[in-house]
Amino acid sequence: MNGAFESLAAQLADVGRHCYERGWALGTSGNFSAVVREEPLTLAITSSGVDKGLLEASHIVAIDAQGRVVQGAGTPSAEAMLHLAIVRSRGAGAVLHTHSIWSTILSDAVTDGSLMIEGYEMLKGLDGVRTHEHRERLPVIENTQDWARAVPQLELVLRDNPGAHGFLIRGHGLYTWGKDLAEAKRQIEILEFLFEVMGRKRGMVWQQ
Amino acid sequence: MNGAFESLAAQLADVGRHCYERGWALGTSGNFSAVVREEPLTLAITSSGVDKGLLEASHIVAIDAQGRVVQGAGTPSAEAMLHLAIVRSRGAGAVLHTHSIWSTILSDAVTDGSLMIEGYEMLKGLDGVRTHEHRERLPVIENTQDWARAVPQLELVLRDNPGAHGFLIRGHGLYTWGKDLAEAKRQIEILEFLFEVMGRKRGMVWQQ
Amino acid sequence: MNGAFESLAAQLADVGRHCYERGWALGTSGNFSAVVREEPLTLAITSSGVDKGLLEASHIVAIDAQGRVVQGAGTPSAEAMLHLAIVRSRGAGAVLHTHSIWSTILSDAVTDGSLMIEGYEMLKGLDGVRTHEHRERLPVIENTQDWARAVPQLELVLRDNPGAHGFLIRGHGLYTWGKDLAEAKRQIEILEFLFEVMGRKRGMVWQQ
Amino acid sequence: MNGAFESLAAQLADVGRHCYERGWALGTSGNFSAVVREEPLTLAITSSGVDKGLLEASHIVAIDAQGRVVQGAGTPSAEAMLHLAIVRSRGAGAVLHTHSIWSTILSDAVTDGSLMIEGYEMLKGLDGVRTHEHRERLPVIENTQDWARAVPQLELVLRDNPGAHGFLIRGHGLYTWGKDLAEAKRQIEILEFLFEVMGRKRGMVWQQ
Repeated sequence: MNGAFESLAAQLADVGRHCYERGWALGTSGNFSAVVREEPLTLAITSSGVDKGLLEASHIVAIDAQGRVVQGAGTPSAEAMLHLAIVRSRGAGAVLHTHSIWSTILSDAVTDGSLMIEGYEMLKGLDGVRTHEHRERLPVIENTQDWARAVPQLELVLRDNPGAHGFLIRGHGLYTWGKDLAEAKRQIEILEFLFEVMGRKRGMVWQQ
Repeated sequence: MNGAFESLAAQLADVGRHCYERGWALGTSGNFSAVVREEPLTLAITSSGVDKGLLEASHIVAIDAQGRVVQGAGTPSAEAMLHLAIVRSRGAGAVLHTHSIWSTILSDAVTDGSLMIEGYEMLKGLDGVRTHEHRERLPVIENTQDWARAVPQLELVLRDNPGAHGFLIRGHGLYTWGKDLAEAKRQIEILEFLFEVMGRKRGMVWQQ
Repeated sequence: MNGAFESLAAQLADVGRHCYERGWALGTSGNFSAVVREEPLTLAITSSGVDKGLLEASHIVAIDAQGRVVQGAGTPSAEAMLHLAIVRSRGAGAVLHTHSIWSTILSDAVTDGSLMIEGYEMLKGLDGVRTHEHRERLPVIENTQDWARAVPQLELVLRDNPGAHGFLIRGHGLYTWGKDLAEAKRQIEILEFLFEVMGRKRGMVWQQ
Repeated sequence: MNGAFESLAAQLADVGRHCYERGWALGTSGNFSAVVREEPLTLAITSSGVDKGLLEASHIVAIDAQGRVVQGAGTPSAEAMLHLAIVRSRGAGAVLHTHSIWSTILSDAVTDGSLMIEGYEMLKGLDGVRTHEHRERLPVIENTQDWARAVPQLELVLRDNPGAHGFLIRGHGLYTWGKDLAEAKRQIEILEFLFEVMGRKRGMVWQQ
């Protein structure tokens, strides 16, 4: 397992610094994980409280299915429970959480429980989407400081939105995932692009 | 032909990464081509599905006038048909397609089939334009997933807009071209600048 | 004291150039300090009139509790009086002042003496904040060119807002602080992120 | 003169690439000059048609008071006449012209012939300004393609606005100057910052 863990830890650190540079994980915000092995489930994940601009492979720990650290030094984020729930529900190989300006604004502006995105060519960058006529519905869940308790509700949301490629937490940011880290990273870029388009459009006065 | 192809492949990879860094070709969006030779027509073009932030010369293929790969490994984008149509219609030496925030927004906001830009000094960066009093009319065509079928319509649009330096695809982005790659790259910068000016102006409350 | 001063001078120069690159300290704007020792109080602080994009350790001077230079060549900013007042009132180990687009705009827009920020997960990046339900109230003080005279008023504002993690000067920017430079730098990023969220939200037309 | 010319040419190329990277001189837009000697007047200035992202010292020519090239290869911009007029009228040692998004937008929005900026601390970065209570009035002149003919009118504008630190050309951008290149560059940053503040404020809905 060690070789796989070390390789993923280095890749997660790269992804984290990339997100920091884009302004999607300022300060200690954001957290990132990838599945090291499935049986028994082992997840490489950023430890809590690290400045993402300074993220190194040594800041990544491995946890088991109950969220206990099995390798590396550090405490996983309280949100590790969300990562584990997404891996279980979606069979994801990697889970990325960013905390950008536009996802914060849009998650706060939604009033009916989900953000709808449709008609954009960029949607084709999402896994399995073949046409810009796709309608992506991203659920928005309420923020909390008790994620262990909120996991059952998240599992219902994921079950009720089988086509969703991510979800938003109100005032908090985006979760997305993929079969591997490269796919999850591509989806982060796609969704952040679409959030910026939608956010900037809302600021417009449409009369030319 | 090989020397010319290899040189253009390296230049196209540079242009592609530059566009990625500017946020104009995130994820796998955007595609870029340049004419290797005219007789028989051979076009160097980005292959499909490559992350433009990681674009290398080895991701460029050469295609013939029917879009068949004649050199390099990879599948050209379905939009290769658009590149070939532009080369035929305009005698272009290079064709660039970007997918920026502002071109996405403006292409979606246009209601009468074209985006009009006039009065800006920056227009003089477009090929053959000598005064800021120039009126640039960029046609907006509808997006589709069947470009082979849409080519005849595009050819009509290009014929009906002989002065246009580019066109927009709704919700999808910009195509522009030039006699060579340097001119096409300069036009990308000029047009993206003007899109940002026009997009930001629309967000303004004009009373001081 | 020399080793500590030299180390802090180098760190302050790094922080200053970082802020310049983010656009938070253009030209000669912004100033940055850290406590070298507490007894007698000695503060390392940027000297006045230096382009922050070119900031070097040699541009940092040490001053005493009265603002007199005790080490290094240069004149401390007139705002050194604010830094000393914050160190005294809050027991801070580092004080950072940035001058960003969004803090300038928001400080000017506030009409009731303080900027209220609440409900955002990012607030948890502020020292001692454990929940997004935190309500941060940043006082806004009027700008002046006579800071020596304005210090008593600032001390009252700090006393009346014991929970505030920073304050704004109208049309001028942000002051924040921390027990050390790393904490103060993290708070700059957190607050600038929140200013941008709030500023962009105000530009929005809320009807979807 | 040669040593002075070569040193200024290298510095002008640095300033030009810096402006390109900030998005203030995209494509071939923008032009930059500095006085090599006063008697007889010799001005180092960017030659026309150069991509500012690729600007090198070899793209700088020296011209005399009539705009004739006296050193280097290349054609000076038609706007060299403006640079010479500013040097004569203001005794400037360096003149910088940028072409940013915000200066383009604001120059186009002004309806009464000048842009007024007041109350911002950042104004103190302008030469001789000692307080944020300063009121800066930047004249806006109409764009033209015949600068040789427009020079007398510009000279009147400069004479009628003796306190102005720059002027705008409608839909075209900013001219500012300083006793040397460092001062002119600082003023570019100060004015571009203030344009962005004013432009973004106009996009705001002031009700919180």
